[in-house]
Formats: sequence, structure tokens, C-alpha cells
Amino acid sequence: MGAMSVVIHADEGDDVVRQGPDARQRMIGAAREIIRERGYHAMSLSEVVERSAAPRGSLYYHFPQGKQQIAAETAGIHAGEQLGEIRRLAGEATSAADLVRGYVDRAREGMIASGYGRGCAIAPLVTGVGEASGGLGEACRLGFTEIVDAIAVQFVAFGLGATAATELAHAVLAGVQGAEITSRALRSPEPFDAVRSALVECARLHAAGTGDAPRRSPPP
Amino acid sequence: MGAMSVVIHADEGDDVVRQGPDARQRMIGAAREIIRERGYHAMSLSEVVERSAAPRGSLYYHFPQGKQQIAAETAGIHAGEQLGEIRRLAGEATSAADLVRGYVDRAREGMIASGYGRGCAIAPLVTGVGEASGGLGEACRLGFTEIVDAIAVQFVAFGLGATAATELAHAVLAGVQGAEITSRALRSPEPFDAVRSALVECARLHAAGTGDAPRRSPPP
Repeated sequence: MGAMSVVIHADEGDDVVRQGPDARQRMIGAAREIIRERGYHAMSLSEVVERSAAPRGSLYYHFPQGKQQIAAETAGIHAGEQLGEIRRLAGEATSAADLVRGYVDRAREGMIASGYGRGCAIAPLVTGVGEASGGLGEACRLGFTEIVDAIAVQFVAFGLGATAATELAHAVLAGVQGAEITSRALRSPEPFDAVRSALVECARLHAAGTGDAPRRSPPP
Repeated sequence: MGAMSVVIHADEGDDVVRQGPDARQRMIGAAREIIRERGYHAMSLSEVVERSAAPRGSLYYHFPQGKQQIAAETAGIHAGEQLGEIRRLAGEATSAADLVRGYVDRAREGMIASGYGRGCAIAPLVTGVGEASGGLGEACRLGFTEIVDAIAVQFVAFGLGATAATELAHAVLAGVQGAEITSRALRSPEPFDAVRSALVECARLHAAGTGDAPRRSPPP
């Protein structure tokens, strides 16, 4: 949508448009950083403009609905990045249990690398906005649905049945989301280690019936 | 601390003091509700005063450090209530797995009863405040530590080894915290069901070596 707007207005040649897609992406990146650090309500549009070094005018140009719109797009970008990571980790994994380990460890390393200062970009939108959120609530729902589906698809490719795969994928997403919060509060990787250990055991149990065989088919 | 302040000033007989402990508790209760619904930053002190029907003056009297102080005390109250619930659930449970089931189901029922509108009172303080939080960060750390310890103590009483008990307790807290977020976003109990199923399996595995025996000793 952003790209299209730029094409439509490109002939006007004003500064806002020339800084179009880049400024737009930088603003979403800045919003995402702030949300991961301090949540939705603590994000001021001035800080988004400042961090992204974008002209203030381009904020209203790209996000006419303001803060909720930029946050909703941030949730989509965050989920999209997760999908890519899940695909990459699944390509490196030798079993469902191995994918679980990789996915938990990725979040664990990110938390430690941020000095326990940065969590998921979607969770604060869920806890910090509540009911009155329209498109933002829908963006969170969609983001989490996509992540669960992406993990489940890989579990199926590793030989799990569809129901078991979806259930385990929900447990993996919830486990990592929760560890992001308790690990951050405790400033310790212990919750990630505990979640990994529990979920790897479950993945092995589910795979036991299938012989924990190598992937049956490439992911879609 | 609040009660002590009231004793010290009781002779002054002003309205603030007469409404002392009750108004204080009502204000913490109101703050807790708002934080569970919309997080820390969305909580205005005016709304706390309004919801608690407390005189505005008593807010500054009981919470001279303002918003961070009331939120920190809210985290303590929330954790304290959890400790009571864990003790109660453990008293009704017949095994570690049974306690896991009860603890997850309690959170699941609360989420459904709130129409997916109310989560944990501590999580939004962790994701919504970040580093600059001093006493508030410490209150969150302490709250989660107490909950993990309380669950682990019960697991030990049900026969698990100390290390396994602490690890499983971390996984249970993280699993429930994560399900509170993804279930709320998805407006579905599925994440709670998945987390319960995974953690009950783990509790059974851990208990297998101990014969899943009845509690060895009453909890402290």
C-alpha cells in the first residue's frame, strides 16, 4: 500500500514522496524497536520520527491513521520476520524437537543480547491496548495465527499428525512468549531453558510414534 | 506500611486518614484492574481515583511516589494472591501433574470469564516499562520469583527432585504467561489447552521416577 501511494504521487516530486518507501520502512523499524523496549503507549510519534530520521510530514503521509496504524503494520512486519526465521530454522533442523530447540534458543539469544531490554513486538500491543483496538487487535491476531500455522506446517513436515502439530505449535509460541516476559523480569535465561526442556520432551513424545523421521516433504 | 501510616496520623482525624486502609486497598485494586486490562502506561491516576471512589488527596498521601509506586504494590498484591491460589490448588491436587492442570485451568477460566479482556497484572509492567523502572522492575522480579518458588515447593512435596521442580515451575509460569497473551490475541482458549497438555505430560514424565506418589509432606 505504501509503495503504491508512492507511485501515485511520484510525479509531484515533493520531499515526502522522495523519502517514500525508505522513510516508511525506517519509521516502522523505529516503532518496532520502541514497542519491543517499552510497549505501545510509551511510543510517541515524535520519538518514531526522531529515531527514524524521517521528516515529520512523512509520518502523517504514510500513516494517516496515526499510532494504531503504525503499530498494526509493525505487528505484521514482526510476524513476517518470524515466518522467515521459522523456515530457516526448519531447514537446519533434523526433527520437530530440533526445530523447537532452535526456535526457543533464537528468542533466548535475542533476549540476552538485548540485555533483557527488548521482547516481542506483538505482546505489548495485546496487553497494552485491550478491546478498543479495531485493526490493531486484528493485526495481533493475524500475526500470532501466522506464526502458529508456520510452526505447525513444519511439524507436519517432520511427521507429526496435523492436530498434534497445531497443539504443539500453540504450546511453543505461548512458551516462548511467556519466557520473553518472565526471563526479562528475572534477568535470567532460566525460563527459556525450562521451556525448551519441556517442549523438546513433548516434541519427542509426539514424534515417537512417527520414529522421529527426517522431513517427509519440503515446507510450502 | 500503609496501615502503619494510618496509625501514626490517626489522631489528626482528617478525611484522608479516615479513609486510610480501605481507600488504599481500593486504589490498588483499581490500579490492578486497569493494568490487567490496558497495561501500565494507559493507567492514569485520575482513573485510579475515579474507579476506587477514593478522595484524590488520599492517592498522594498513600502513594507519594505516584504511579510507579502504586504499580509496584499492585505487582506484590497480584503475586500474593497467586501464592494463595497455588496453595489452595495444591491442597486439592493429587499429583504434580494435577497441580499443573489446576493452575493452567484457573488462568484459562479467568481469561474466558473476562471476555479475553484481562491478563496478568505483572506482565504489562515488564513489557511496558523497560529498564528505567527501579523499584517497579524489582517488584516484578520479586513477584515472579515468589510464584516460581511457590509452585516448585509444591512439586517437591509431590515427590519431584528440587532441580526438576524448579525447572518445571519456570516452564509452568512461562507457559501460562504466554497463553495469557496469545489466547487473548486469538480470543480462543486453544493456547491454554496446548500449554496444559504439554506441561501435564512433562509433569508426568518427571513424576514417573517417583511413582507419582501422594504428597510426602505438607507445604510450608
